Amino acid sequence: MKPLFLLTNDDGYQASGLSTLIDIARGFGDVVVMAPEKNASGQSHSFTVDYPLYVSTVVKEQGLSVHYCNGKPVDCVKLGVEHFCSRRPDMLLSGINHGSNSSINILYSGTMGAALEAATIGIPAIGFSLLDHSADADFSKSVPFVSAIIDTALKHSMPIGSALNVNIPAMGSDKPKGIKVCRQSRASWLEAYNKVDDEQGRECYLLAGRFQCDDNGQGTDQWALENGYVSIVPITTDFTDTDSLRKTRRIYESII
Amino acid sequence: MKPLFLLTNDDGYQASGLSTLIDIARGFGDVVVMAPEKNASGQSHSFTVDYPLYVSTVVKEQGLSVHYCNGKPVDCVKLGVEHFCSRRPDMLLSGINHGSNSSINILYSGTMGAALEAATIGIPAIGFSLLDHSADADFSKSVPFVSAIIDTALKHSMPIGSALNVNIPAMGSDKPKGIKVCRQSRASWLEAYNKVDDEQGRECYLLAGRFQCDDNGQGTDQWALENGYVSIVPITTDFTDTDSLRKTRRIYESII
Repeated sequence: MKPLFLLTNDDGYQASGLSTLIDIARGFGDVVVMAPEKNASGQSHSFTVDYPLYVSTVVKEQGLSVHYCNGKPVDCVKLGVEHFCSRRPDMLLSGINHGSNSSINILYSGTMGAALEAATIGIPAIGFSLLDHSADADFSKSVPFVSAIIDTALKHSMPIGSALNVNIPAMGSDKPKGIKVCRQSRASWLEAYNKVDDEQGRECYLLAGRFQCDDNGQGTDQWALENGYVSIVPITTDFTDTDSLRKTRRIYESII
Repeated sequence: MKPLFLLTNDDGYQASGLSTLIDIARGFGDVVVMAPEKNASGQSHSFTVDYPLYVSTVVKEQGLSVHYCNGKPVDCVKLGVEHFCSRRPDMLLSGINHGSNSSINILYSGTMGAALEAATIGIPAIGFSLLDHSADADFSKSVPFVSAIIDTALKHSMPIGSALNVNIPAMGSDKPKGIKVCRQSRASWLEAYNKVDDEQGRECYLLAGRFQCDDNGQGTDQWALENGYVSIVPITTDFTDTDSLRKTRRIYESII
Protein backbone atom coordinates (compact mmCIF):
# COMPACT_ATOMS: atom_id res chain seq x y z
CA MET A 1 0.00 0.00 0.00
CA LYS A 2 1.24 3.49 -0.87
CA PRO A 3 2.10 5.71 2.10
CA LEU A 4 -0.43 8.37 3.07
CA PHE A 5 0.94 11.82 3.90
CA LEU A 6 -0.84 14.62 5.73
CA LEU A 7 0.65 17.99 4.79
CA THR A 8 0.29 21.36 6.46
CA ASN A 9 2.20 24.60 6.95
CA ASP A 10 1.89 27.98 8.64
CA ASP A 11 2.21 30.24 5.60
CA GLY A 12 -1.25 29.33 4.30
CA TYR A 13 -2.52 26.88 1.71
CA GLN A 14 -1.45 29.04 -1.24
CA ALA A 15 2.22 29.33 -0.24
CA SER A 16 4.71 28.14 -2.81
CA GLY A 17 6.68 26.21 -0.17
CA LEU A 18 3.63 24.01 0.37
CA SER A 19 3.18 23.51 -3.39
CA THR A 20 6.76 22.28 -3.59
CA LEU A 21 6.17 19.89 -0.69
CA ILE A 22 2.98 18.55 -2.31
CA ASP A 23 4.85 17.82 -5.54
CA ILE A 24 7.60 15.98 -3.67
CA ALA A 25 5.23 13.98 -1.45
CA ARG A 26 3.12 12.85 -4.42
CA GLY A 27 6.19 11.12 -5.75
CA PHE A 28 6.05 8.83 -2.73
CA GLY A 29 2.33 8.30 -2.08
CA ASP A 30 -1.11 9.79 -1.49
CA VAL A 31 -1.43 13.29 -0.10
CA VAL A 32 -4.04 15.05 2.04
CA VAL A 33 -3.41 18.75 2.64
CA MET A 34 -5.06 20.65 5.48
CA ALA A 35 -3.53 24.09 5.82
CA PRO A 36 -4.50 27.45 7.29
CA GLU A 37 -6.43 29.77 4.99
CA LYS A 38 -4.09 32.65 5.78
CA ASN A 39 -0.59 33.15 7.06
CA ALA A 40 -0.37 31.77 10.61
CA SER A 41 3.33 32.37 11.30
CA GLY A 42 4.36 32.69 14.93
CA GLN A 43 1.44 30.55 16.11
CA SER A 44 3.67 27.99 17.81
CA HIS A 45 1.65 25.17 19.39
CA SER A 46 -1.45 27.33 19.93
CA PHE A 47 -4.87 25.98 19.01
CA THR A 48 -8.31 27.47 18.45
CA VAL A 49 -10.34 27.61 21.63
CA ASP A 50 -13.13 30.07 21.03
CA TYR A 51 -14.69 29.68 17.59
CA PRO A 52 -15.78 26.89 15.24
CA LEU A 53 -13.53 25.79 12.40
CA TYR A 54 -14.81 25.77 8.82
CA VAL A 55 -13.15 23.75 6.08
CA SER A 56 -13.08 24.37 2.31
CA THR A 57 -11.92 21.84 -0.24
CA VAL A 58 -10.08 23.12 -3.30
CA VAL A 59 -8.74 19.90 -4.85
CA LYS A 60 -10.23 16.42 -4.71
CA GLU A 61 -8.71 13.95 -7.13
CA GLN A 62 -7.12 10.48 -7.13
CA GLY A 63 -4.28 10.54 -4.60
CA LEU A 64 -4.59 14.22 -3.69
CA SER A 65 -7.04 16.32 -1.70
CA VAL A 66 -6.36 19.90 -0.64
CA HIS A 67 -8.33 21.62 2.12
CA TYR A 68 -7.95 24.81 4.06
CA CYS A 69 -9.55 26.05 7.26
CA ASN A 70 -9.75 29.09 9.53
CA GLY A 71 -7.57 27.36 12.12
CA LYS A 72 -3.94 27.26 13.12
CA PRO A 73 -1.31 24.70 12.14
CA VAL A 74 -1.98 22.55 15.23
CA ASP A 75 -5.73 22.62 14.48
CA CYS A 76 -4.94 21.53 10.92
CA VAL A 77 -3.13 18.42 12.15
CA LYS A 78 -5.94 17.47 14.54
CA LEU A 79 -8.66 18.09 11.93
CA GLY A 80 -6.73 16.46 9.10
CA VAL A 81 -5.96 13.26 11.00
CA GLU A 82 -9.44 12.86 12.50
CA HIS A 83 -11.75 13.98 9.71
CA PHE A 84 -9.96 14.21 6.33
CA CYS A 85 -7.59 11.24 6.10
CA SER A 86 -9.14 7.96 4.95
CA ARG A 87 -6.84 6.18 7.39
CA ARG A 88 -4.18 7.11 9.92
CA PRO A 89 -1.48 8.96 7.93
CA ASP A 90 1.95 7.37 7.77
CA MET A 91 3.68 10.71 8.06
CA LEU A 92 3.03 14.40 8.70
CA LEU A 93 5.00 16.85 6.60
CA SER A 94 4.95 20.55 7.49
CA GLY A 95 6.29 23.39 5.35
CA ILE A 96 8.29 24.09 3.40
CA ASN A 97 8.34 27.18 5.59
CA HIS A 98 9.35 30.54 4.12
CA GLY A 99 12.04 31.43 6.70
CA SER A 100 14.21 29.80 9.34
CA ASN A 101 12.98 27.58 12.15
CA SER A 102 16.43 26.75 13.42
CA SER A 103 17.63 27.30 16.97
CA ILE A 104 15.18 29.00 19.32
CA ASN A 105 12.85 29.89 16.42
CA ILE A 106 11.33 26.45 16.84
CA LEU A 107 9.54 27.67 19.98
CA TYR A 108 7.54 30.27 18.04
CA SER A 109 7.02 28.31 14.85
CA GLY A 110 3.61 27.16 13.65
CA THR A 111 5.33 24.88 11.13
CA MET A 112 7.09 23.08 13.96
CA GLY A 113 4.03 23.26 16.24
CA ALA A 114 2.25 21.15 13.63
CA ALA A 115 5.12 18.65 13.51
CA LEU A 116 5.19 18.35 17.29
CA GLU A 117 1.40 17.92 17.41
CA ALA A 118 1.65 14.91 15.09
CA ALA A 119 4.44 13.57 17.30
CA THR A 120 2.15 13.70 20.37
CA ILE A 121 -0.19 11.25 18.65
CA GLY A 122 2.61 8.99 17.46
CA ILE A 123 2.67 10.03 13.80
CA PRO A 124 6.21 10.43 12.40
CA ALA A 125 6.63 14.09 11.50
CA ILE A 126 9.06 16.33 9.66
CA GLY A 127 9.04 20.12 9.48
CA PHE A 128 10.94 21.73 6.60
CA SER A 129 12.08 25.35 6.39
CA LEU A 130 14.07 27.33 3.83
CA LEU A 131 16.07 30.29 5.11
CA ASP A 132 14.36 32.74 2.79
CA HIS A 133 11.33 34.70 4.01
CA SER A 134 10.22 35.96 0.62
CA ALA A 135 6.94 34.77 -0.88
CA ASP A 136 8.68 33.93 -4.16
CA ALA A 137 11.63 32.12 -2.57
CA ASP A 138 13.36 29.60 -4.84
CA PHE A 139 12.67 26.13 -3.45
CA SER A 140 14.21 24.25 -6.40
CA LYS A 141 17.55 23.51 -4.72
CA SER A 142 15.69 22.19 -1.66
CA VAL A 143 13.91 19.47 -3.62
CA PRO A 144 16.63 16.77 -3.71
CA PHE A 145 17.26 17.19 0.03
CA VAL A 146 13.59 17.19 1.06
CA SER A 147 13.02 14.20 -1.18
CA ALA A 148 15.98 12.21 0.22
CA ILE A 149 14.96 12.98 3.81
CA ILE A 150 11.35 11.83 3.26
CA ASP A 151 12.59 8.69 1.50
CA THR A 152 14.89 7.90 4.41
CA ALA A 153 12.23 8.64 7.04
CA LEU A 154 9.87 6.17 5.34
CA LYS A 155 12.48 3.44 5.74
CA HIS A 156 13.58 4.14 9.33
CA SER A 157 11.24 4.40 12.31
CA MET A 158 11.26 7.51 14.49
CA PRO A 159 10.91 7.33 18.30
CA ILE A 160 7.30 8.00 19.43
CA GLY A 161 6.95 11.62 20.54
CA SER A 162 9.81 12.74 18.30
CA ALA A 163 10.03 14.62 15.01
CA LEU A 164 12.66 16.16 12.73
CA ASN A 165 13.34 19.87 12.36
CA VAL A 166 14.93 20.36 8.92
CA ASN A 167 16.33 23.74 7.87
CA ILE A 168 17.78 24.44 4.45
CA PRO A 169 20.23 27.28 3.75
CA ALA A 170 19.35 29.69 0.93
CA MET A 171 22.56 29.90 -1.08
CA GLY A 172 21.73 31.78 -4.22
CA SER A 173 23.09 29.82 -7.15
CA ASP A 174 24.94 27.27 -4.98
CA LYS A 175 23.31 24.17 -3.60
CA PRO A 176 23.72 22.94 0.00
CA LYS A 177 26.91 20.97 0.65
CA GLY A 178 25.17 18.09 2.42
CA ILE A 179 23.30 17.24 5.61
CA LYS A 180 24.38 17.66 9.23
CA VAL A 181 22.41 16.19 12.15
CA CYS A 182 22.70 18.72 14.96
CA ARG A 183 21.61 19.86 18.37
CA GLN A 184 19.50 23.02 18.67
CA SER A 185 21.57 26.18 19.25
CA ARG A 186 20.86 28.33 22.28
CA ALA A 187 19.79 31.85 21.27
CA SER A 188 17.49 34.73 22.21
CA TRP A 189 15.31 37.31 20.51
CA LEU A 190 16.14 40.71 22.01
CA GLU A 191 14.69 44.22 21.56
CA ALA A 192 11.38 42.64 20.67
CA TYR A 193 9.19 45.77 20.57
CA ASN A 194 9.67 49.35 19.47
CA LYS A 195 7.66 51.96 21.34
CA VAL A 196 6.03 54.31 18.83
CA ASP A 197 3.02 56.61 18.53
CA ASP A 198 0.12 55.41 16.40
CA GLU A 199 -1.77 57.65 13.97
CA GLN A 200 -3.90 59.03 16.81
CA GLY A 201 -0.78 59.81 18.87
CA ARG A 202 -1.39 56.92 21.25
CA GLU A 203 1.62 55.00 22.54
CA CYS A 204 1.89 51.48 21.20
CA TYR A 205 4.45 48.75 20.68
CA LEU A 206 5.41 47.32 17.29
CA LEU A 207 7.15 44.02 16.80
CA ALA A 208 10.84 44.34 16.01
CA GLY A 209 13.39 41.86 17.36
CA ARG A 210 17.08 41.09 17.01
CA PHE A 211 18.24 37.48 16.90
CA GLN A 212 21.26 36.83 19.09
CA CYS A 213 23.06 33.50 18.93
CA ASP A 214 26.48 32.93 20.46
CA ASP A 215 26.09 29.16 20.43
CA ASN A 216 27.13 28.38 16.87
CA GLY A 217 29.98 25.95 17.27
CA GLN A 218 30.30 22.71 15.32
CA GLY A 219 27.50 20.31 16.14
CA THR A 220 24.83 23.05 16.33
CA ASP A 221 22.18 23.81 13.73
CA GLN A 222 23.44 27.40 13.43
CA TRP A 223 26.91 26.16 12.53
CA ALA A 224 25.53 23.80 9.89
CA LEU A 225 23.40 26.50 8.24
CA GLU A 226 26.12 29.15 8.36
CA ASN A 227 28.47 26.67 6.69
CA GLY A 228 26.14 25.72 3.86
CA TYR A 229 24.68 22.46 5.18
CA VAL A 230 21.07 21.36 5.60
CA SER A 231 20.50 20.93 9.37
CA ILE A 232 18.39 18.17 10.90
CA VAL A 233 17.62 18.40 14.61
CA PRO A 234 15.74 15.43 16.08
CA ILE A 235 13.25 17.04 18.48
CA THR A 236 10.97 15.81 21.24
CA THR A 237 7.66 16.74 22.84
CA ASP A 238 9.19 15.93 26.22
CA PHE A 239 10.38 19.26 27.66
CA THR A 240 11.91 17.69 30.79
CA ASP A 241 15.39 19.06 31.48
CA THR A 242 16.77 15.64 32.32
CA ASP A 243 20.23 17.06 33.07
CA SER A 244 18.92 19.00 36.06
CA LEU A 245 16.33 16.48 37.29
CA ARG A 246 18.48 15.02 40.03
CA LYS A 247 19.74 18.38 41.31
CA THR A 248 16.21 19.84 41.27
CA ARG A 249 14.96 16.82 43.23
CA ARG A 250 17.62 17.30 45.87
CA ILE A 251 16.82 20.99 46.25
CA TYR A 252 13.02 21.01 46.17
CA GLU A 253 11.58 17.74 47.48
CA SER A 254 12.06 18.43 51.18
CA ILE A 255 11.30 22.17 51.40
CA ILE A 256 7.76 21.73 52.77
CA MET B 1 18.25 44.97 47.22
CA LYS B 2 14.80 43.38 47.13
CA PRO B 3 14.20 40.97 44.28
CA LEU B 4 12.15 42.22 41.34
CA PHE B 5 9.50 39.87 39.95
CA LEU B 6 7.75 40.10 36.61
CA LEU B 7 4.37 38.35 36.74
CA THR B 8 2.09 37.24 33.94
CA ASN B 9 -0.49 34.57 33.17
CA ASP B 10 -2.76 33.40 30.38
CA ASP B 11 -6.14 33.74 32.11
CA GLY B 12 -6.07 37.54 31.96
CA TYR B 13 -5.08 40.24 34.44
CA GLN B 14 -8.28 39.92 36.48
CA ALA B 15 -7.94 36.18 37.18
CA SER B 16 -7.91 35.22 40.84
CA GLY B 17 -4.92 32.90 40.33
CA LEU B 18 -2.85 35.94 39.35
CA SER B 19 -4.10 37.91 42.38
CA THR B 20 -2.94 35.07 44.62
CA LEU B 21 0.47 35.05 42.92
CA ILE B 22 0.80 38.84 43.31
CA ASP B 23 0.09 38.57 47.04
CA ILE B 24 2.70 35.84 47.47
CA ALA B 25 5.37 37.58 45.37
CA ARG B 26 4.95 40.86 47.27
CA GLY B 27 6.04 39.02 50.39
CA PHE B 28 9.44 38.55 48.74
CA GLY B 29 10.03 41.74 46.77
CA ASP B 30 8.80 44.24 44.19
CA VAL B 31 6.30 43.19 41.57
CA VAL B 32 5.57 44.27 38.01
CA VAL B 33 2.56 42.62 36.38
CA MET B 34 2.06 42.55 32.60
CA ALA B 35 -0.81 40.25 31.72
CA PRO B 36 -3.19 39.76 28.81
CA GLU B 37 -6.37 41.81 28.92
CA LYS B 38 -8.49 38.74 28.23
CA ASN B 39 -8.21 35.00 28.57
CA ALA B 40 -5.37 33.77 26.33
CA SER B 41 -5.45 30.07 27.19
CA GLY B 42 -4.07 27.66 24.60
CA GLN B 43 -1.75 30.33 23.15
CA SER B 44 1.40 28.31 23.74
CA HIS B 45 4.53 30.18 22.64
CA SER B 46 2.71 32.23 20.00
CA PHE B 47 3.35 35.94 19.72
CA THR B 48 1.63 38.88 18.07
CA VAL B 49 2.82 39.45 14.53
CA ASP B 50 0.23 41.60 12.83
CA TYR B 51 -1.05 44.40 15.06
CA PRO B 52 0.36 46.91 17.54
CA LEU B 53 0.18 46.25 21.27
CA TYR B 54 -1.46 48.77 23.60
CA VAL B 55 -0.82 48.81 27.33
CA SER B 56 -3.05 50.05 30.16
CA THR B 57 -1.87 50.58 33.72
CA VAL B 58 -4.33 49.80 36.53
CA VAL B 59 -2.07 49.94 39.61
CA LYS B 60 1.05 52.05 40.17
CA GLU B 61 2.24 52.19 43.76
CA GLN B 62 5.40 51.60 45.78
CA GLY B 63 6.60 48.08 45.00
CA LEU B 64 3.71 47.14 42.70
CA SER B 65 2.62 48.08 39.19
CA VAL B 66 -0.08 46.23 37.28
CA HIS B 67 -0.46 46.53 33.50
CA TYR B 68 -2.43 44.68 30.88
CA CYS B 69 -2.17 44.60 27.11
CA ASN B 70 -3.88 43.20 24.01
CA GLY B 71 -1.09 40.67 23.55
CA LYS B 72 -0.39 37.07 24.43
CA PRO B 73 1.58 35.70 27.37
CA VAL B 74 4.85 35.62 25.38
CA ASP B 75 4.28 39.24 24.29
CA CYS B 76 3.70 40.16 27.94
CA VAL B 77 7.11 38.80 28.94
CA LYS B 78 8.90 40.62 26.11
CA LEU B 79 7.06 43.90 26.77
CA GLY B 80 7.34 43.63 30.54
CA VAL B 81 11.08 42.99 30.56
CA GLU B 82 11.94 45.62 27.95
CA HIS B 83 9.61 48.48 28.74
CA PHE B 84 7.98 48.12 32.18
CA CYS B 85 10.63 46.80 34.58
CA SER B 86 12.98 49.40 36.07
CA ARG B 87 15.77 46.82 35.80
CA ARG B 88 16.19 43.25 34.60
CA PRO B 89 13.76 41.18 36.69
CA ASP B 90 15.26 38.55 38.98
CA MET B 91 12.48 36.10 38.23
CA LEU B 92 9.45 35.57 36.01
CA LEU B 93 6.40 34.04 37.67
CA SER B 94 3.49 32.88 35.50
CA GLY B 95 0.05 31.83 36.74
CA ILE B 96 -1.36 30.61 38.97
CA ASN B 97 -3.14 28.99 36.03
CA HIS B 98 -6.74 27.86 36.37
CA GLY B 99 -6.27 24.26 35.15
CA SER B 100 -3.53 21.70 34.62
CA ASN B 101 -0.35 22.25 32.65
CA SER B 102 1.12 18.89 33.48
CA SER B 103 2.28 16.33 30.92
CA ILE B 104 1.69 17.22 27.27
CA ASN B 105 -0.49 20.20 28.25
CA ILE B 106 2.70 22.21 28.55
CA LEU B 107 2.91 22.32 24.73
CA TYR B 108 -0.37 24.23 24.41
CA SER B 109 -0.07 26.38 27.51
CA GLY B 110 0.26 30.15 27.41
CA THR B 111 1.26 30.11 31.08
CA MET B 112 4.21 27.88 30.27
CA GLY B 113 4.92 29.70 26.98
CA ALA B 114 5.58 32.79 29.10
CA ALA B 115 7.89 30.87 31.44
CA LEU B 116 9.86 29.43 28.52
CA GLU B 117 10.12 32.87 26.90
CA ALA B 118 11.78 34.24 30.05
CA ALA B 119 14.09 31.22 30.01
CA THR B 120 15.23 32.06 26.46
CA ILE B 121 16.56 35.39 27.74
CA GLY B 122 18.17 33.87 30.82
CA ILE B 123 15.61 34.98 33.41
CA PRO B 124 14.79 32.26 35.97
CA ALA B 125 11.13 31.37 35.48
CA ILE B 126 8.42 29.36 37.22
CA GLY B 127 4.95 28.55 35.90
CA PHE B 128 2.31 27.58 38.47
CA SER B 129 -0.98 25.79 37.74
CA LEU B 130 -3.79 24.51 39.96
CA LEU B 131 -5.76 21.52 38.69
CA ASP B 132 -9.08 23.37 38.87
CA HIS B 133 -10.44 25.14 35.77
CA SER B 134 -13.14 27.15 37.55
CA ALA B 135 -12.88 30.93 37.72
CA ASP B 136 -13.52 30.82 41.49
CA ALA B 137 -11.04 27.99 42.20
CA ASP B 138 -9.74 27.92 45.78
CA PHE B 139 -6.04 28.82 45.68
CA SER B 140 -5.61 29.02 49.47
CA LYS B 141 -4.05 25.57 49.89
CA SER B 142 -1.59 26.37 47.08
CA VAL B 143 -0.13 29.35 48.90
CA PRO B 144 2.38 27.59 51.22
CA PHE B 145 3.70 25.52 48.32
CA VAL B 146 4.01 28.40 45.87
CA SER B 147 5.66 30.47 48.55
CA ALA B 148 8.17 27.76 49.51
CA ILE B 149 9.07 27.12 45.85
CA ILE B 150 9.69 30.83 45.13
CA ASP B 151 11.74 31.14 48.31
CA THR B 152 13.85 28.15 47.28
CA ALA B 153 14.25 29.35 43.68
CA LEU B 154 15.58 32.69 44.93
CA LYS B 155 18.33 30.84 46.83
CA HIS B 156 19.36 28.32 44.15
CA SER B 157 20.35 29.21 40.60
CA MET B 158 18.55 27.63 37.66
CA PRO B 159 20.40 26.54 34.50
CA ILE B 160 20.14 29.17 31.72
CA GLY B 161 17.40 28.20 29.28
CA SER B 162 15.53 26.23 31.94
CA ALA B 163 12.39 26.86 33.97
CA LEU B 164 10.11 25.03 36.40
CA ASN B 165 6.65 23.68 35.59
CA VAL B 166 4.75 23.45 38.89
CA ASN B 167 1.33 21.80 39.08
CA ILE B 168 -0.75 21.64 42.22
CA PRO B 169 -3.50 19.05 42.78
CA ALA B 170 -6.96 20.35 43.74
CA MET B 171 -7.90 18.20 46.72
CA GLY B 172 -11.06 19.69 48.19
CA SER B 173 -10.55 20.06 51.91
CA ASP B 174 -7.21 18.18 51.97
CA LYS B 175 -3.89 19.83 51.30
CA PRO B 176 -1.16 18.40 49.02
CA LYS B 177 1.03 15.76 50.69
CA GLY B 178 4.33 17.31 49.60
CA ILE B 179 6.44 17.98 46.49
CA LYS B 180 7.72 15.52 43.89
CA VAL B 181 10.25 16.51 41.22
CA CYS B 182 9.26 14.57 38.11
CA ARG B 183 9.74 14.00 34.43
CA GLN B 184 6.95 15.01 32.02
CA SER B 185 4.47 12.19 31.27
CA ARG B 186 3.86 11.16 27.68
CA ALA B 187 0.23 11.69 26.70
CA SER B 188 -2.04 12.71 23.80
CA TRP B 189 -5.20 14.67 23.21
CA LEU B 190 -7.53 12.56 21.06
CA GLU B 191 -10.93 13.18 19.43
CA ALA B 192 -10.06 16.86 19.27
CA TYR B 193 -13.00 18.12 17.18
CA ASN B 194 -16.68 17.26 16.91
CA LYS B 195 -18.26 17.75 13.49
CA VAL B 196 -21.57 19.60 13.92
CA ASP B 197 -23.88 21.87 11.94
CA ASP B 198 -23.89 25.55 12.83
CA GLU B 199 -27.07 27.63 13.09
CA GLN B 200 -27.13 28.12 9.31
CA GLY B 201 -26.79 24.36 8.74
CA ARG B 202 -23.14 24.68 7.65
CA GLU B 203 -20.73 21.94 8.67
CA CYS B 204 -18.17 23.05 11.22
CA TYR B 205 -15.84 21.60 13.84
CA LEU B 206 -16.04 22.39 17.54
CA LEU B 207 -13.22 21.81 19.98
CA ALA B 208 -13.72 18.73 22.15
CA GLY B 209 -10.76 16.52 23.14
CA ARG B 210 -10.07 13.55 25.40
CA PHE B 211 -6.84 13.41 27.37
CA GLN B 212 -5.14 10.03 27.20
CA CYS B 213 -2.14 9.27 29.40
CA ASP B 214 -0.81 5.76 29.92
CA ASP B 215 2.54 7.00 31.20
CA ASN B 216 1.68 7.63 34.85
CA GLY B 217 4.17 5.49 36.75
CA GLN B 218 6.19 6.71 39.71
CA GLY B 219 8.59 9.47 38.68
CA THR B 220 6.11 11.15 36.30
CA ASP B 221 4.14 14.32 36.93
CA GLN B 222 0.87 12.47 36.35
CA TRP B 223 1.73 9.99 39.13
CA ALA B 224 2.59 12.80 41.55
CA LEU B 225 -0.65 14.68 40.89
CA GLU B 226 -2.86 11.58 40.98
CA ASN B 227 -1.29 10.72 44.32
CA GLY B 228 -1.80 14.11 45.95
CA TYR B 229 1.63 15.68 45.46
CA VAL B 230 2.65 18.99 43.94
CA SER B 231 4.70 18.17 40.80
CA ILE B 232 7.75 20.12 39.69
CA VAL B 233 9.16 19.34 36.24
CA PRO B 234 12.40 21.16 35.35
CA ILE B 235 11.93 22.10 31.68
CA THR B 236 14.14 23.35 28.89
CA THR B 237 13.89 25.48 25.77
CA ASP B 238 16.19 23.00 24.02
CA PHE B 239 13.91 20.61 22.14
CA THR B 240 16.77 18.41 20.87
CA ASP B 241 16.02 14.72 21.35
CA THR B 242 19.51 13.98 22.59
CA ASP B 243 18.73 10.27 22.99
CA SER B 244 18.28 9.84 19.24
CA LEU B 245 20.95 12.28 18.06
CA ARG B 246 23.59 9.63 17.36
CA LYS B 247 21.22 7.24 15.61
CA THR B 248 19.72 10.06 13.52
CA ARG B 249 23.23 11.15 12.51
CA ARG B 250 24.13 7.63 11.40
CA ILE B 251 20.94 7.35 9.32
CA TYR B 252 20.73 10.76 7.64
CA GLU B 253 24.18 12.31 7.20
CA SER B 254 25.22 10.32 4.16
CA ILE B 255 21.95 10.02 2.22
CA ILE B 256 22.80 12.75 -0.29
